[in-house]
Amino acid sequence: MHSVLVINGPNLNLLGTREPDIYGTTTLAELDQMCVAWGEELDLTVSTFQSNHEGMLIDRIQQAAGETEGFVINAGALTHYSYALYDALVAVGVPTVEVHISNIHGREDWRSISVIQPACLAQLSGEGLEGYRRALQVLSGAG
Amino acid sequence: MHSVLVINGPNLNLLGTREPDIYGTTTLAELDQMCVAWGEELDLTVSTFQSNHEGMLIDRIQQAAGETEGFVINAGALTHYSYALYDALVAVGVPTVEVHISNIHGREDWRSISVIQPACLAQLSGEGLEGYRRALQVLSGAG
Amino acid sequence: MHSVLVINGPNLNLLGTREPDIYGTTTLAELDQMCVAWGEELDLTVSTFQSNHEGMLIDRIQQAAGETEGFVINAGALTHYSYALYDALVAVGVPTVEVHISNIHGREDWRSISVIQPACLAQLSGEGLEGYRRALQVLSGAG
Amino acid sequence: MHSVLVINGPNLNLLGTREPDIYGTTTLAELDQMCVAWGEELDLTVSTFQSNHEGMLIDRIQQAAGETEGFVINAGALTHYSYALYDALVAVGVPTVEVHISNIHGREDWRSISVIQPACLAQLSGEGLEGYRRALQVLSGAG
Amino acid sequence: MHSVLVINGPNLNLLGTREPDIYGTTTLAELDQMCVAWGEELDLTVSTFQSNHEGMLIDRIQQAAGETEGFVINAGALTHYSYALYDALVAVGVPTVEVHISNIHGREDWRSISVIQPACLAQLSGEGLEGYRRALQVLSGAG
Amino acid sequence: MHSVLVINGPNLNLLGTREPDIYGTTTLAELDQMCVAWGEELDLTVSTFQSNHEGMLIDRIQQAAGETEGFVINAGALTHYSYALYDALVAVGVPTVEVHISNIHGREDWRSISVIQPACLAQLSGEGLEGYRRALQVLSGAG
Amino acid sequence: MHSVLVINGPNLNLLGTREPDIYGTTTLAELDQMCVAWGEELDLTVSTFQSNHEGMLIDRIQQAAGETEGFVINAGALTHYSYALYDALVAVGVPTVEVHISNIHGREDWRSISVIQPACLAQLSGEGLEGYRRALQVLSGAG
Amino acid sequence: MHSVLVINGPNLNLLGTREPDIYGTTTLAELDQMCVAWGEELDLTVSTFQSNHEGMLIDRIQQAAGETEGFVINAGALTHYSYALYDALVAVGVPTVEVHISNIHGREDWRSISVIQPACLAQLSGEGLEGYRRALQVLSGAG
Amino acid sequence: MHSVLVINGPNLNLLGTREPDIYGTTTLAELDQMCVAWGEELDLTVSTFQSNHEGMLIDRIQQAAGETEGFVINAGALTHYSYALYDALVAVGVPTVEVHISNIHGREDWRSISVIQPACLAQLSGEGLEGYRRALQVLSGAG
Amino acid sequence: MHSVLVINGPNLNLLGTREPDIYGTTTLAELDQMCVAWGEELDLTVSTFQSNHEGMLIDRIQQAAGETEGFVINAGALTHYSYALYDALVAVGVPTVEVHISNIHGREDWRSISVIQPACLAQLSGEGLEGYRRALQVLSGAG
Amino acid sequence: MHSVLVINGPNLNLLGTREPDIYGTTTLAELDQMCVAWGEELDLTVSTFQSNHEGMLIDRIQQAAGETEGFVINAGALTHYSYALYDALVAVGVPTVEVHISNIHGREDWRSISVIQPACLAQLSGEGLEGYRRALQVLSGAG
Amino acid sequence: MHSVLVINGPNLNLLGTREPDIYGTTTLAELDQMCVAWGEELDLTVSTFQSNHEGMLIDRIQQAAGETEGFVINAGALTHYSYALYDALVAVGVPTVEVHISNIHGREDWRSISVIQPACLAQLSGEGLEGYRRALQVLSGAG
Repeated sequence: MHSVLVINGPNLNLLGTREPDIYGTTTLAELDQMCVAWGEELDLTVSTFQSNHEGMLIDRIQQAAGETEGFVINAGALTHYSYALYDALVAVGVPTVEVHISNIHGREDWRSISVIQPACLAQLSGEGLEGYRRALQVLSGAG
Repeated sequence: MHSVLVINGPNLNLLGTREPDIYGTTTLAELDQMCVAWGEELDLTVSTFQSNHEGMLIDRIQQAAGETEGFVINAGALTHYSYALYDALVAVGVPTVEVHISNIHGREDWRSISVIQPACLAQLSGEGLEGYRRALQVLSGAG
Repeated sequence: MHSVLVINGPNLNLLGTREPDIYGTTTLAELDQMCVAWGEELDLTVSTFQSNHEGMLIDRIQQAAGETEGFVINAGALTHYSYALYDALVAVGVPTVEVHISNIHGREDWRSISVIQPACLAQLSGEGLEGYRRALQVLSGAG
Repeated sequence: MHSVLVINGPNLNLLGTREPDIYGTTTLAELDQMCVAWGEELDLTVSTFQSNHEGMLIDRIQQAAGETEGFVINAGALTHYSYALYDALVAVGVPTVEVHISNIHGREDWRSISVIQPACLAQLSGEGLEGYRRALQVLSGAG
Repeated sequence: MHSVLVINGPNLNLLGTREPDIYGTTTLAELDQMCVAWGEELDLTVSTFQSNHEGMLIDRIQQAAGETEGFVINAGALTHYSYALYDALVAVGVPTVEVHISNIHGREDWRSISVIQPACLAQLSGEGLEGYRRALQVLSGAG
Repeated sequence: MHSVLVINGPNLNLLGTREPDIYGTTTLAELDQMCVAWGEELDLTVSTFQSNHEGMLIDRIQQAAGETEGFVINAGALTHYSYALYDALVAVGVPTVEVHISNIHGREDWRSISVIQPACLAQLSGEGLEGYRRALQVLSGAG
Repeated sequence: MHSVLVINGPNLNLLGTREPDIYGTTTLAELDQMCVAWGEELDLTVSTFQSNHEGMLIDRIQQAAGETEGFVINAGALTHYSYALYDALVAVGVPTVEVHISNIHGREDWRSISVIQPACLAQLSGEGLEGYRRALQVLSGAG
Repeated sequence: MHSVLVINGPNLNLLGTREPDIYGTTTLAELDQMCVAWGEELDLTVSTFQSNHEGMLIDRIQQAAGETEGFVINAGALTHYSYALYDALVAVGVPTVEVHISNIHGREDWRSISVIQPACLAQLSGEGLEGYRRALQVLSGAG
Repeated sequence: MHSVLVINGPNLNLLGTREPDIYGTTTLAELDQMCVAWGEELDLTVSTFQSNHEGMLIDRIQQAAGETEGFVINAGALTHYSYALYDALVAVGVPTVEVHISNIHGREDWRSISVIQPACLAQLSGEGLEGYRRALQVLSGAG
Repeated sequence: MHSVLVINGPNLNLLGTREPDIYGTTTLAELDQMCVAWGEELDLTVSTFQSNHEGMLIDRIQQAAGETEGFVINAGALTHYSYALYDALVAVGVPTVEVHISNIHGREDWRSISVIQPACLAQLSGEGLEGYRRALQVLSGAG
Repeated sequence: MHSVLVINGPNLNLLGTREPDIYGTTTLAELDQMCVAWGEELDLTVSTFQSNHEGMLIDRIQQAAGETEGFVINAGALTHYSYALYDALVAVGVPTVEVHISNIHGREDWRSISVIQPACLAQLSGEGLEGYRRALQVLSGAG
Repeated sequence: MHSVLVINGPNLNLLGTREPDIYGTTTLAELDQMCVAWGEELDLTVSTFQSNHEGMLIDRIQQAAGETEGFVINAGALTHYSYALYDALVAVGVPTVEVHISNIHGREDWRSISVIQPACLAQLSGEGLEGYRRALQVLSGAG
C-alpha cells in the first residue's frame, strides 16, 4: 500500500477550536500535517479531505477509489446514520479503518452504534489523535 | 401523464462498475437511455437525474414539481433514513413509484424499511432494472 | 403473459355494501367485471376468486399455478399474519402483485406490515380500485 | 402405543414438486407410504392426513383423539401463529412430536418460533424426511 | 334488541369433555341451551353457532348481519391473531360483546391480547359460563 | 346485589363543561342522578363518589368494602398507571365493572392499556354515558 | 394576558435546602417572589402554588381555569407519569409553559420523557431558575 | 442511629384483614407494635406512619428528615411508578431500607421493578413481616 | 443579545405554497420579513437562512458562530435524524431555540423525537408561525 | 451408531437430593446406570459425564469427538447463555439431542430460550428422566 | 445460625490493588479477616472463599450446603449472567445475602440486573465493604 | 512496548481441524508460531495462551498484568457474554486489541455484540489470521 486518504466528516473542521476538553487543542490543519508525517514514516503518501456534506464525502470516496489504496475515516455524527456512506465504502472496496477521537462507547447511546463499521476492517475509538496514527499503521500492514 | 423524472440517489452513479453480482453490468447512462426508450413506448417524455447529495435530490424534486407529472425514484440508502426526502415528495404531491434493483426485503434488516414508502403509490423491489420499466408503466396508467 | 387470476381475501365480498367511506360503493361483482375489462385492454384473460377461508385461498393458489401466469392478490387481513399464504405464493412461483384499496401505511400499526410482501414483485396501496388496474399493467409488462 | 396419525399442514401437499432444493423430490404420497412402512417396523399402525385449512386440521385432531395414541405433526407455516392448533393439541392431550423438514432455526426470523412447541414432547428440525422416522421412534418408545 | 347470535370459535366444541379444571363440565350443547334460556328471560331470541374454521366464522358473521341485532363471541384462540375476524365484526357493525370463560389476563402472555377487542363494546373475562349470561344482559340493555 | 358505588376519578368532575366533543354536555351531577335512577330500575341502591386524588379513591374503596356489593369505576387517567388502585380493588374483592366514556382503544397509545382491568369482571369502553347503565346491568346480574 | 399561575409539584418545596449542586440555593419562597417581580416587568399578575399531592395540583388547575390566563408548571417527578395532570391541562385549555430547572434530557432515562409536554406550548429545560422568567416571557407574548 | 420511621404505603392498612394467603393475618397495628419492640432490642426509637396518599407520604418523608435517622419503607404499589417518592428519598438523604412482604420478583412483571430502589441501601423481599425486623437490623448497623 | 439568525431546513422554502392546511399560506419570504420585524420590536437584528442541504446548514451554523448571539432553528425533517446538526449546535455553543410550525407530538411517531432538542434551551411546537416570534422573545430575555 | 456420551451440566450432580418436586428422587448415579441399560437395549455403548464447569464440558465434547458417535446433553442453566458450548457442538459436528427434565417452556422466561438448540437435531423437554431414554432412541435411529 | 460462608467471585482477588477509586484499598485477605471478626461479634463462625471460575463457585456452594447455615455472596460480573449460580443457590436452599461494593444501579446498564437476586433474601449495594458486615447482620437475625 | 500475550478462548484450540471454510486450515500451534514471528519483526516478545475455561482466562490475564505490556485477545464465544472477562481487562489496565477471525458483524445476531469491546483500544474483525498480525502492529505503535 502506497497511498491513503484521511477523510474527516461533519464538524471536524472545528477541531482544536471547540470543546477542547473532549477533542483537544490540535487543529484539523495540524492533524492533517501529522497524518502526512506519520505516513512518511510508514512509506505512505497521505492526502486529506474534510466536509460537512454527506454528498461531498460520498463523491470524494468514489473519486478516490481509483487513486488511493486505503482510507482512514472519521465520519463524525454521520457514523451513526449514514447508510449512504456505508454503501459508498462497500461499493468502492478500498480497505478502510474507522477512527473516533473520543470513546464512542462511553457517551450517548446513539454514539455507540456505527453503521459504517461492517464496511471497515478495524474500528479505533477513544485514543485521541493517536488513533489516526494507529489506523495508518493498520493500513500500512495490509499491503 | 406525459412527462416523468427518473431520480437516482447515492452511489447509483456507480451502476455497472461496482458489485455487478448485486447490481448487474449496465451503467447508469445506459439505464437512463433505457428509461427514455421505455418512456417513448408509453408516450412518456422521460428525463433523468442522479446525485449523491440529499439536498440536491430535494432541490430537484421541488423544481420538477411544476415541470413533470410523475416520479420514479430509487433513493439508494437514503431510502432508509431520509425523512426530508419523504417530506419533499409529500409536499410536491407528484405521483411517485419507488424502485429498488435488489430485493430490499432479503438483505440487511435496515434495508427492509423504507421511510419514503408512505409517500409513494407503489414499491417495486428485486426485479433488477426491469423494475424501472414497470414503474413507468404504473405511472403511464395513472393519467 | 396471457392469463391472470385476481384473488380477494376475507371480507372483500362485502365490498360496496359496508364502510363505503373507506372502501367505496363498487361491489365485488362490479370490481371483478372491471378487472376482466381492464384485462382485455391489456390482452390478458382475467379470472377472479374470493374466499373468507385461508385454506381455500391456498388451495386455489396451488390449483391455479398450472393454469395462470400471474396473480393479483388482496389478501385482506390475512395479509398481516398468514405465513401459510406467503409459503403458498413462494411455492408456486407465479408472479404476484399485492394490492390494498386503502393505504395500509396510514391506519392501525398492524396493517402496515405485510407478511406476503417478500413473495410479491410489487405492492400497491391506497389507490382505491385503481390499484387493481395498475397491478394488471405491472403483470402485463412482465411477460 | 399402537396407532399414530401423521398430520401435514399447509403447502405440504406440494412436497416433491416445488422448491426441491429445500424440501427434496419425494412427494407427499411417497412420504405417507414411508411413514406407514416405518410404523410397521416399530409395530405402529400409521395413518396420514394433510390439509391447507387450519379448521380441518383442528377437526381432524379432535376426531383422532379417540382413535389414535400419538401424533406426528408438521404444521407448515401455521406452526408460527396458530394458537388454535396449539389449543387443540393441549385439549386432546395426545402425545405429539413436532417435525420440520428444513431447519426452522436457520431461515427467516419468524420461522424460528413455534407456538405449538409447548404442546409437544419433542421438536425435530432440519433432518429432512428422516425427521418423520425419528418422530415415530420417539412415540414408539412412549408406550 | 330482539335477536342475538352466540358464536363460539375453535375447540369450544370440546367444552365439558376436556380440561374441566379450566373450562368446567358443562358441554357446548348445554351452554347453547342455557344461552337460549337466559335470552328468554331478557326477551331475546338467541341462536348459536360454533366452528373450528376462521373462514366459517367470518361467513356466519356476514350472513347474520341482516338477521340478528347482537353478537356474543368467544373466538377461542383466534382472539389473539385473527385480524380477519376483527375486520368482519367492524364491517357488519353489529353490537358485539366478547366473552372468555377463563381469565385471559392470568395465563400465557399471548392470551392477554385480544385483536378483536376494539370491535367490541365490552370484554368479559374469567367469570366462567356466567360471562355469557352477562354478555346477553349487556346486549339486552343496548336496544 | 343491592348496593353499588359509582366511582369517578380525576377530571371527571369537569364532565359536561369541558371537551364536549369527546365527553358530551351532561354534568357529573346529572350523571350521578342518572346512575341512581338506572339503579332503581334494577333494584340497586346507587351511591356516587368523585375525586381527583388517588389516595382518596383508595380510601373510599376500602371504606365501601363493608357497605356496598359492587363498584362501577371510571378511574380517568389513573386507569393507565395506578397499580395502587388495582391493589385496592383486588384487596377488597368487591365485584367491579370498569367504564370509559370514550373508546380508550382509539386514542393515544397509553390510553389503550388499563392496569386495573385484571381486577375487573368487565371493561366497557366507547359507549358514552350509556356505559354506566350497562355496567349497572352487569352488576345487577351478578347477585 | 394579565394573570399567570406558577405551579410547582412534588419536592420543589425543598428548593434551596437540598441538593444545591443540582437545584441551587434559592428557596421556593424566594423563587415565588422572583416570579412575581418578573411578572410585574411584563405586566403580568403572578400567583404561585406548590403541592406534593397530584390531586391538589389537579384541583388547583381546575379552579384556576376561570381566574388565570396562563400557567407555568414544574411538575417535578409527576412530569414523567401523571397522565391525570396531562388530562387536567388539556381539559381546562389554559396556555401552559413547562419548566425544568435541570436539563431533564441529561439525567436518568425516565426523566427525559414528559407526559404533559403535548399539553404545553413550550418546554424549557436546563436553564435553572432563569427558565421560569423565560416561561413568563413566552406567556406574556401569547396575549 | 437512634430513631427510625417505618413507612407503609397504599393498602397496607388492610394488612391482616385481606388476602391473608399472601400477606398473613397480622394487622398493621400489630406490625407497628412489633417494629417498636424490635427497635427496643436494637436501641432504636421506632415511630410508624401509613397512608394511601402519595402526597402525604412525601410530606411525611420531608418532615421526618430533621427528626429521624433512618427509614424503613414499604411503599406498596407506589414502589413501581412513584418517581416523586424516589425524588423525596434522594432529596432528604436519610438512610432507607426497602421492604416487601411478598417476593416482588415472583409475581406480576410490573411488581419486579422498584423505581425507589436506587435511593435505598438495601432491598428485602419475600421474607414476610420478618423483613421489617431485618431492615431495622441493617439500619441499626449503619450508625 | 443583539443579533439572531433564523435557520430553516429542508422543504421550508415551500412554505405558503404547499400543504396550506398544515403549514398555512404565508411564504418563507414573508416569514423572514416577519422575523426581522419582530426582532426590531425586541431590539434584535435578525438575519435568515434556508437550505435543503444538511451540509450547508452545518456550514452556516459554524460560520454564524462568530457573528450572531442566538439561533432560532426549524430543521424540518432533519430534526429527527441529523446528529451532525446536533453536534454543530453543541460545538458552537450559541443559545438556540427549536421551533416547529405544526405540533410534532401529534403526527407520525418519528416526528415526535427531536435529536437536536438536547442542544436547545427551549422547544416550541404547534403554535404555527407565532412560534418564531416566541422563540425570539425567549432569546431576547437570555441576554 | 454404536457409542453415545450422555453429558450433564451444572447442578445435575444434585439430582435426586434437591428439589425432588421438580427433578424427582433418582440420583445422577442411578440415571447414569439407567442410560447405560437403555443403551444396551438399543445396541449402544453409553458413557456419561457431568461437570459444573463450562470449560470442562467443552474440553470433554472436543475430546469425545473422535471417540463417540452421538451426544445426549442436558446443559443445565448453561443452556441459556453458553454460546461457547454451542460453538463446541457445532465445531465437532457430532449428532446431539438436547434434553431437559422439566418443561423449560413452562418456567421462568429465561429458561424457554436454548442457545444450543440450533446445534441439536432434537430438543426433548418436560418428560422427566424418560427424556434421556427417548434421546437415546432418536440417536439410535440416526445411524 | 452459627456458620456463614463469604463467597467472592471473579476479579475480587484483585481487591485493594486495582481501581481503588471504585473498590478502595483494602485487600481481599483483609476483607476476609474483617468478615471473620464481624462474625465473632455476631457469634457467627465465618469462612471465606474466592474464585475466578464459575464452576468452582458452584462446586463450593454445593459442598458448603451441609456445612454452613448462610451465604454472603459477591458474585462479581457473574451476577449478571450466571443462571447456573442461581440454580446452585436455589438447589441448596441456604439463606443467602447478595452484596455489591459499588452501587450496581448507578453504573453500566448491564450491572443493574442481578440474575441471582431472586435466590437471595436481601441485596445490599453501594455501601462499600460495610455491605459485608450488614449482610452478616441480616443473616445473624435469621436464625 | 516489549512483550505481548496472545490469548485465545474457547474452541480456538480446534483451529485448522474444524470448520475450515470459516476458520481456515492453519492450526493453533501454527498461529502461535506466526504470532511469535510477527512479534520479532516488530521487536515484540510474544507469548501465547489458550483455554476453554473462562476462569483460567481470567487467572491468566491477572497473572500476566505484571509481566506483559499488551494483550491480543480472541475470546471466542465468551466475547458475547463474559462480563467477567471484561472486568478482568479493565482491572489490569493492560492495552488490549480484540481480534476475530471471521466477520462477527456478518453472522448470527448474538455474534455482533462484544461485551469486552469497551475495554479494548481496537477491534479487528473478518481479516482471518491476518488480524492477529495487525493487532500486534497496533500494540507495537502504542509504546
